[in-house]
Amino acid sequence: MVKTEDQKDYVQSLERGLSVILAFSDHRPQLTLSEVAELTALSRPTVRRLLLTLEQLGYVRSEGRYFSLTPHVLGLGYAYLSSLNLTEVAQPFMEEVTKITGQTCSLSALDGHDAVFLARVPAKQVMRMTLTTGTRLPAFATSMGRVLLAGLPEHQLEETLCGLTLSPLTAHTVTDTATLRERLAEVREQGWALVDQEFEEGVRSLSAPVRDTGCRVIATLSMSVPARQYSLEDIKENLLPVVRDNAHEISKRLGASVSR
Amino acid sequence: MVKTEDQKDYVQSLERGLSVILAFSDHRPQLTLSEVAELTALSRPTVRRLLLTLEQLGYVRSEGRYFSLTPHVLGLGYAYLSSLNLTEVAQPFMEEVTKITGQTCSLSALDGHDAVFLARVPAKQVMRMTLTTGTRLPAFATSMGRVLLAGLPEHQLEETLCGLTLSPLTAHTVTDTATLRERLAEVREQGWALVDQEFEEGVRSLSAPVRDTGCRVIATLSMSVPARQYSLEDIKENLLPVVRDNAHEISKRLGASVSR
Repeated sequence: MVKTEDQKDYVQSLERGLSVILAFSDHRPQLTLSEVAELTALSRPTVRRLLLTLEQLGYVRSEGRYFSLTPHVLGLGYAYLSSLNLTEVAQPFMEEVTKITGQTCSLSALDGHDAVFLARVPAKQVMRMTLTTGTRLPAFATSMGRVLLAGLPEHQLEETLCGLTLSPLTAHTVTDTATLRERLAEVREQGWALVDQEFEEGVRSLSAPVRDTGCRVIATLSMSVPARQYSLEDIKENLLPVVRDNAHEISKRLGASVSR
Repeated sequence: MVKTEDQKDYVQSLERGLSVILAFSDHRPQLTLSEVAELTALSRPTVRRLLLTLEQLGYVRSEGRYFSLTPHVLGLGYAYLSSLNLTEVAQPFMEEVTKITGQTCSLSALDGHDAVFLARVPAKQVMRMTLTTGTRLPAFATSMGRVLLAGLPEHQLEETLCGLTLSPLTAHTVTDTATLRERLAEVREQGWALVDQEFEEGVRSLSAPVRDTGCRVIATLSMSVPARQYSLEDIKENLLPVVRDNAHEISKRLGASVSR
């Protein structure tokens, strides 16, 4: 993990404790002390102290040699969700979008190079998407990510693009920074993003920004549809107005003084 | 926070760092250093170091005097959810329950004295419940909680009941431990829980256990319905079989060798 020169202000045991929590993801519900040590590249005595502390705080439980996370850990993730009232405000509008369009509606935010789902309202009848809250998708190749990147202040966008590798995910993925910048400028100009099979063959997605009181883009409302069912024109005519209007309504409820 | 006698094994800065994250919940998206210090009862220099560390790790961002959590924090909560494959396995069965019954179906786990929602499949047409993943309800007065408490090993149940205050939430709430124990024994015997307006007037709920490979109760599938629409007999005849069968199917998929 990167550190500043000013090491004395860095609390290393906090970083290490958080890395112990993260070691349990990816279908590893039970880990021994040695396995956690291996996954985190920390010494066994250090891992032992961190696991015992997390156990005392209720985030971890032990059973014989095995340690596992408890649902108490959810409280950390939800400290973020409940600090915003974004998901609460957005929920009825997302349900409206799903009801009108028959398509799964998602709310996401930017985390580094990824768009992260904050909430989803799934459509019943369509192809099952098993993506849930917390799932991450590369920002540069998704309509969600394009809206979120386009909403960054210039210096933050530069920082983000700087460390970004544009790997092709399909034959259509934009993989050079100059073209990506042009696309982001278009998104900024038109107020929505439409991405045609750049993330996954056969899938088109559209997104519109959700803004806060300062009119900053804090999230995006989006939808992915099968390309064989929806032409680009269909999407613009039938789906875009619904997504854009509802993103707009959420922004108004959050105090953004936006006009259509 | 309670500590063992063995203080040398306790990593206090980890506890403190986690308390800084938790300070942001409850609709407080932006906090100054002083506000975090006040909310956590920590000194300003300590809070400063913790915030700077969390900022470097990407969990916190600052803007002028204000600090806020980033969506990166979701990764911690989802380390728990993704370590189990419980929610993935349960999702299609929960959708089935909602489709058949027309009622919101929930999956929850026990965290201390509370039942915590891990996932929900909302019904469209009924009364809106704004409860989302991570929401906590008191275990002793809900059908979810009764199933989860009834599934605890005896010594853990004793520990949990020991520190529990049974406050009346409605005129129907069971508020003495002896009666609660009897109810839990019934739940254990019959394999499901039905709670009649003990948590909220006018709301009845039913729950069935979800078991893991060791046949331990790790979660519960549940449903809450308006009492004016569903008599206790209706619930037992029409809703219970659906909830119980689907909880059973989830348990089978998780490797529990359960028989009906």
